[in-house]
Amino acid sequence: MSDLSPTLELACQLISRPSVTPEDAGCQQMMAERLEAIGFKCEFLRFGEVDNLWAVRGEEGPILAFAGHTDVVPPGPESAWKFPPFEPTFHETDEGEMLFGRGAADMKGSLASMVVACEEFIAQHPDHQGRIAFLITSDEEGPAINGTVKVVEWLEERNEKITWCLVGEPSSTSKTGDTIKNGRRGSLGCELTVKGKQGHVAYPHLAENPIHTFAPALADLTAEKWDDGNDFFPATSFQVSNINGGTGATNVIPGELNVVFNFRFSTELTEEILRQRTEAILDKHGLTYDINWKLSGHPFLTAAGPLVDACVESIREVAGIETELSTAGGTSDGRFIAPTGAQVVELGPVNATIHQINERVKASDLDQLTEIYKGMLVRLLK
Amino acid sequence: MSDLSPTLELACQLISRPSVTPEDAGCQQMMAERLEAIGFKCEFLRFGEVDNLWAVRGEEGPILAFAGHTDVVPPGPESAWKFPPFEPTFHETDEGEMLFGRGAADMKGSLASMVVACEEFIAQHPDHQGRIAFLITSDEEGPAINGTVKVVEWLEERNEKITWCLVGEPSSTSKTGDTIKNGRRGSLGCELTVKGKQGHVAYPHLAENPIHTFAPALADLTAEKWDDGNDFFPATSFQVSNINGGTGATNVIPGELNVVFNFRFSTELTEEILRQRTEAILDKHGLTYDINWKLSGHPFLTAAGPLVDACVESIREVAGIETELSTAGGTSDGRFIAPTGAQVVELGPVNATIHQINERVKASDLDQLTEIYKGMLVRLLK
Ligand SMILES: [Zn+2]
Ligand SMILES: [Zn+2]
Repeated sequence: MSDLSPTLELACQLISRPSVTPEDAGCQQMMAERLEAIGFKCEFLRFGEVDNLWAVRGEEGPILAFAGHTDVVPPGPESAWKFPPFEPTFHETDEGEMLFGRGAADMKGSLASMVVACEEFIAQHPDHQGRIAFLITSDEEGPAINGTVKVVEWLEERNEKITWCLVGEPSSTSKTGDTIKNGRRGSLGCELTVKGKQGHVAYPHLAENPIHTFAPALADLTAEKWDDGNDFFPATSFQVSNINGGTGATNVIPGELNVVFNFRFSTELTEEILRQRTEAILDKHGLTYDINWKLSGHPFLTAAGPLVDACVESIREVAGIETELSTAGGTSDGRFIAPTGAQVVELGPVNATIHQINERVKASDLDQLTEIYKGMLVRLLK
Repeated sequence: MSDLSPTLELACQLISRPSVTPEDAGCQQMMAERLEAIGFKCEFLRFGEVDNLWAVRGEEGPILAFAGHTDVVPPGPESAWKFPPFEPTFHETDEGEMLFGRGAADMKGSLASMVVACEEFIAQHPDHQGRIAFLITSDEEGPAINGTVKVVEWLEERNEKITWCLVGEPSSTSKTGDTIKNGRRGSLGCELTVKGKQGHVAYPHLAENPIHTFAPALADLTAEKWDDGNDFFPATSFQVSNINGGTGATNVIPGELNVVFNFRFSTELTEEILRQRTEAILDKHGLTYDINWKLSGHPFLTAAGPLVDACVESIREVAGIETELSTAGGTSDGRFIAPTGAQVVELGPVNATIHQINERVKASDLDQLTEIYKGMLVRLLK
């Protein structure tokens, strides 16, 4: 393995550590040693059972923070894997030489690229402008309570502001850098209990079937056009994930119906508007209900500016492609950093195999990602 | 207890036996001894774990069969009862002197009235016309597989036809005889699985949510007017008893949705028409589904004739009220007897407390019921 690039070598060292959420398994210690060697000051912030790392180089000026996570999702049945999930393995496939292992794409590969990009940038520009930081957690794939949220609170208490945040989440779809995320939709969850009156199916006039009373409201909710999206966001989507009513008996009209649904929403709408419009539809149908809303994240957007420019230009230079700005897909820890006023962009490798059996990334893509990150450092801090 | 009427004394003896379905607990043996003493020939027909009794008196001519069941539904928590459920107890209440006990109303009281009515009728008319029969099962409240269905098959094999069938189910609502059931709605059940494609709520365009595709079909099914009923039947009713979709996770679009529903239908419709119309609604909405229909019973009706006349007249004479003919409510074993061509009527005590804690019947109502049954014997067989 002596002919591995520095990025691939570090990626393998990180993948070897079975850091299933919330375990860090020593990954942050390994990163911190590399960063301290090039002048970073590291602070280990443990909240609850979660390890977090804040590392910063430089005394003043704008902060470019690399954000990411050392934790990975569980590998599932190891026997289903082509190679053991925590034994990083290079293997030639139709797509080229691939690095297999849990976290290869999400996101230990990105972490390795970040560290090596800094090492090479600092070797060339030891007296760079501003500051470089790392905000690393081991709880991105889990409840996300004692991770980035808490580190951001800790930074705010110290009046430390991130200017530009580069989240290493795997944003690319088929080539490194073909897509970056410059925002994310909001996510609003809801647990609804529609109340009725239990009874016997032979005597429906003595009962009130909540499945029946909810039926036209459900049809309206699924047919509703919540918005048209905008230049940066697709249209807001409503999805019912769970619906449960009935005692199991076939002759009993149930007394209540439980429904769980979720909005992924654009910057055209707010949490309040979605709540109001949903409840207006329920009320229009005369329903009696309990409702319990839970906001997972407001939508955020980094429409333009130095960070997006640095991404776009560096990708064009290194990979020779025009990147696409996107706000589609799930949530990321960017939702916790954006509200502080930071510009936030997600840029990482191809996400085709994340959270799957045989997670893998093209080996040369990680070296290319290192170059892209280095190009951003040059553009923002040289 | 020496001052109890013969009907109440027998009712108490039957209630004392804890004959929870499919147990008969000796009730049929006790009835058979009483019937043999007045000239009935008894046959004990055991199918599976179910005891059944066929008793007949007379050699030829039309058969008036008393049909009923010795089994009772479970008493539930005994501590919730005012008196132990299998210790028949007389107790004065605002409603008068009540007999408490599981089966008092459904339907050991009726069984006692039937036996005593026959004893008194035969004492006065030992050479009555036609035949008197008893068709008694211990599996009416259960799966109803090895009870009346099997006895009816056994009778058909012997070419034995019931002319008039008096089912002792508690048909009355506030006074004995205020309502008789001269038919029952059909019952058609259905298990529906709507097929979709599982996915992540953040990527709904890659999934197909069966809760969403089914929503407008459900709204249509619940809004549909299936028929207007007719002179004898209320409008056909559709009720969803169970709906279940979702993995429990709030971020997963489920791959399928399971729905259980039931029709109670009038003689205006048939099983085939209901199936066709339901599937047409599902197809109109382009659903992919598996569907599993189960008919519990065709609707039946005894519109008019000697049996209904005998009921109406005997109630008028004994109770001084005009009875109401009804086809509402749940199913009974009448659904198995009617298809043989028999006229079928259900006439029994007040059903307000059946299947409940503190099941009870007004003591004097059972004596009145004996008189009503005796009046029917006189009218049909004297
Ligand atoms: Zn990730
Ligand atoms: Zn009954």
